[in-house]
Amino acid sequence: MTDLPLSAAQTILDATLTEARRLNLKPLALVVLDGRGAVKAAVAEDGTSLKRFEVAHGKAYGALALGIGSRAIGKRAVEQPTFVAAVSHVVGGALVPVPGGVLARAGDGQVVAAIGVSGDTSDNDEACAKAGIEAAGLTADTG
Amino acid sequence: MTDLPLSAAQTILDATLTEARRLNLKPLALVVLDGRGAVKAAVAEDGTSLKRFEVAHGKAYGALALGIGSRAIGKRAVEQPTFVAAVSHVVGGALVPVPGGVLARAGDGQVVAAIGVSGDTSDNDEACAKAGIEAAGLTADTG
Amino acid sequence: MTDLPLSAAQTILDATLTEARRLNLKPLALVVLDGRGAVKAAVAEDGTSLKRFEVAHGKAYGALALGIGSRAIGKRAVEQPTFVAAVSHVVGGALVPVPGGVLARAGDGQVVAAIGVSGDTSDNDEACAKAGIEAAGLTADTG
Amino acid sequence: MTDLPLSAAQTILDATLTEARRLNLKPLALVVLDGRGAVKAAVAEDGTSLKRFEVAHGKAYGALALGIGSRAIGKRAVEQPTFVAAVSHVVGGALVPVPGGVLARAGDGQVVAAIGVSGDTSDNDEACAKAGIEAAGLTADTG
Repeated sequence: MTDLPLSAAQTILDATLTEARRLNLKPLALVVLDGRGAVKAAVAEDGTSLKRFEVAHGKAYGALALGIGSRAIGKRAVEQPTFVAAVSHVVGGALVPVPGGVLARAGDGQVVAAIGVSGDTSDNDEACAKAGIEAAGLTADTG
Repeated sequence: MTDLPLSAAQTILDATLTEARRLNLKPLALVVLDGRGAVKAAVAEDGTSLKRFEVAHGKAYGALALGIGSRAIGKRAVEQPTFVAAVSHVVGGALVPVPGGVLARAGDGQVVAAIGVSGDTSDNDEACAKAGIEAAGLTADTG
Repeated sequence: MTDLPLSAAQTILDATLTEARRLNLKPLALVVLDGRGAVKAAVAEDGTSLKRFEVAHGKAYGALALGIGSRAIGKRAVEQPTFVAAVSHVVGGALVPVPGGVLARAGDGQVVAAIGVSGDTSDNDEACAKAGIEAAGLTADTG
Repeated sequence: MTDLPLSAAQTILDATLTEARRLNLKPLALVVLDGRGAVKAAVAEDGTSLKRFEVAHGKAYGALALGIGSRAIGKRAVEQPTFVAAVSHVVGGALVPVPGGVLARAGDGQVVAAIGVSGDTSDNDEACAKAGIEAAGLTADTG
């Protein structure tokens, strides 16, 4: 696994927030996990609800857990709800199956990070995450 | 976040119970959480079932977690059951997606508390919560 | 089990708070559990820390769980720490082995409630709980 | 409770990291929680071990839970190990009783945030947290 440096994580967060403010979204919580699932960087804008960080985290962690973006996990949750419920249990609850958990891949295709965003509609959350990842020169995999 | 004083929480509880007795509802459990999700005040009327407090708590806590009244969480649970199940897991189970978990907003729109009520129909539970919040001069946001 | 009416629970809370203010203690969280371990009434004074309710609850719940006041559980924790750790696990964490969790017994000796208090020193917490229980005409069993 | 704005949380993180690099410490994980216990901002320097974020989080969360810095919780853990183990259980495990979890108080004494730092010695972790809090014009309460 290529390590994601903190400087890249901060670029992702900054660009995600810039996009969120450009789109005038509701206050967001964002988290960047490295390839191990460890929190690399996170911020919550002013006015976020009590558990926004945990929701954002669950989007990103679920994506890493299964190796697919949380949009794809959401599709699978419609087709196979008990599978997704079971995996949610397996990972201790940290799996939120709606768009906004996006994998970041390096040039060789390896997953180096996942970003989770929550606070506006899931589609808007995901659009910001994608913008953040691309600003760091990585490829966004929404699932 | 403005602090919710205990005196205001007690006003909310008293007015909620008064409304419940006026409507001759079944015995209720009620809980007021402050903006941090901490229990500020709670009562269970005589005759409530074993886990009424936990149900009332889950309505209020879920509302704070996502920043919307539990009625709106219930609507989302119909559209996206796995999302709501996942968030329930994320918050440790304390999320009950039916009406009766109502946010209390101050004049500037900020959430300063949430009240959860359980024991009668969800609509009746919510009506009492709303009456309680308004008696304290706050705005009820049912979702 | 004799039921503890809400009116008695409120008498306990009011008298506990009156004693706390007379002694000029730090802000307290208090909870009255009925004989089933259900929350009957609770309040948190202004200025309590984030998890004071949970600590007060764990004192009361542990007392009910083992049928002895939390002071006695604390003594046992010194003699047999692994026993108390194991029971804590068995009850899902809701056991705090220091004074302040006091059983309320009716005239026939039956346990009808437990009160948990947290916020000042454990000895002061317990003194207030005792005053509250006696104000309701019940016998306090501190362990 | 006064809200901690994101800009203040970022000032705390930046100043904490600056102090850590000035002292040439091992790689740190840092987290700023707001008064609700919600993650407001976090970073992990390059080279931190797998669960450094969780350790830092537990220092800060424990401090908020009990309303005292994690240094004081550590002293209590020596005197009353079962009490601290029990509270750790009560708060879902998020309590790490060594220095490095520091409360940030506003001018009126109210707790507006807690910062947790982990990665070097606990004393060094705490020194950085203190520098970060003071850079934001708040008062550090180490316990």
